[in-house]
Amino acid sequence: MRKYSPYHKSIMSFLSQIRIVLVEPSHPGNIGSVARAMKTMGLSNLVLVNPKKFPHVEASKLAAGADSVLQDAKVVPTISEAIGDCTMVLGTSVRDREVTWPTFDPRQTASLVSKHLATVSADNSVAVLFGRESSGLTNAEMDLCQSQIRISANVEYSSLNLASAVQIIAYEMRMQANADSAGLALNEGAELASLEKQALTPAQKRQQVATKLQQEKHLEHLQNTLESLEFVKVKPPTVLMRKLTRLYSKADLSVEEIQILRGIYSAMQNKMSE
Amino acid sequence: MRKYSPYHKSIMSFLSQIRIVLVEPSHPGNIGSVARAMKTMGLSNLVLVNPKKFPHVEASKLAAGADSVLQDAKVVPTISEAIGDCTMVLGTSVRDREVTWPTFDPRQTASLVSKHLATVSADNSVAVLFGRESSGLTNAEMDLCQSQIRISANVEYSSLNLASAVQIIAYEMRMQANADSAGLALNEGAELASLEKQALTPAQKRQQVATKLQQEKHLEHLQNTLESLEFVKVKPPTVLMRKLTRLYSKADLSVEEIQILRGIYSAMQNKMSE
Repeated sequence: MRKYSPYHKSIMSFLSQIRIVLVEPSHPGNIGSVARAMKTMGLSNLVLVNPKKFPHVEASKLAAGADSVLQDAKVVPTISEAIGDCTMVLGTSVRDREVTWPTFDPRQTASLVSKHLATVSADNSVAVLFGRESSGLTNAEMDLCQSQIRISANVEYSSLNLASAVQIIAYEMRMQANADSAGLALNEGAELASLEKQALTPAQKRQQVATKLQQEKHLEHLQNTLESLEFVKVKPPTVLMRKLTRLYSKADLSVEEIQILRGIYSAMQNKMSE
Repeated sequence: MRKYSPYHKSIMSFLSQIRIVLVEPSHPGNIGSVARAMKTMGLSNLVLVNPKKFPHVEASKLAAGADSVLQDAKVVPTISEAIGDCTMVLGTSVRDREVTWPTFDPRQTASLVSKHLATVSADNSVAVLFGRESSGLTNAEMDLCQSQIRISANVEYSSLNLASAVQIIAYEMRMQANADSAGLALNEGAELASLEKQALTPAQKRQQVATKLQQEKHLEHLQNTLESLEFVKVKPPTVLMRKLTRLYSKADLSVEEIQILRGIYSAMQNKMSE
């Protein structure tokens, strides 16, 4: 008999760690269509940031059997609350932007997510942000993201429906999960690996990628230090902080690394107040 | 000036040879959403076999700017008329079937289509059939197909919306067209790319990844700063520096980022010597 369980388990665990975050969606019908798109690909973790109308009969109608995703959806007032416990945050875009974030297509992204998930514990999530139907994500919102997912589209008509964009990303995540599981299934050590994931020693925990909240605290601490240092005259030092945010998000800081950096800032602040 | 033409031409020629065939679609809104999904990916060739309601105001509404696809859509009474002039015919399905046709996923299919198109003339088309919303394609209709495209979906809920299924197939065709064109562009583009590399603006130079030497100077500067700060008592602070080296090597620091960080260290050192 073929052993389906570890294969199935690993697909489900990958997909359950992907959180779809819709930022201020206007049309409840779109929320329903997104729920349906997610469920067809095996995703279930949906967070709505300040939706215009939700719950709503249109959402339930278009969910067409994916009501469970809507019922479990979390509604929060700000993006920070949607991503605070995430270890990786990605922003979706079809536009070109002046400021260029590191940009990957959905397939490359799924591969990065897979590598990332291999390094974090099973209760951590990767957030994928989708912007407003009319105007997408703002630059300030993109600043919360480690990288941008750019869906290749017709330059003359790149107007993907919100649910279509979610469908493509969710599809690539599923394809990656399938590929990973096929790889794992070849390997007798698969079950062992997932067991190892469950019980981390304190030393291993320090090597884990920091959560978004820990990353934000680090950047706040850095900004305070730079302000006491009078490193820039402008307050708040928005442009500088955007550059530093990107610099450190490229590094995928671990819990320990954040401890070291914050230790340096504290030492600096103590020195100045001597 | 950069030559976009051959690249662009080959993408367009690939995509213009893909014909989307909807078999007896019931809901005109779905036809509109399919048109939109197609156009975002650069497809334009749509044929409707015996649609229930078309043209229809719902179709135009959901096409949302992709009206050109609807206007050019051909309506025919039978599948034979939709595929008569095609050199390859593929049927889409998310279901398991008792009779098994040769089955490929959307990505494998796009690759097969690419190989096929290389062997036929530019006015030949590949038809991709999509069945009714309720019941898909019949076995008799699948018999007209060389192979089946099977979209990987949640076994517990595989109910992809018609436009979502088209979106995924169209997306994979576009990704394949992009990849083919990139391959074509490699030869001609190599010289071009190296030319472009030589002439960087000062702003571009700052965005380049720093050289190994610049990285070493950065780490020396950091170490000096930490030593003046008496952050660690051990001199040299080997373990700490090893960790910081790894941290910053993960970030792939740019020239500008190193300038910023070293600026911060200098400001710290100045403050301490005040």
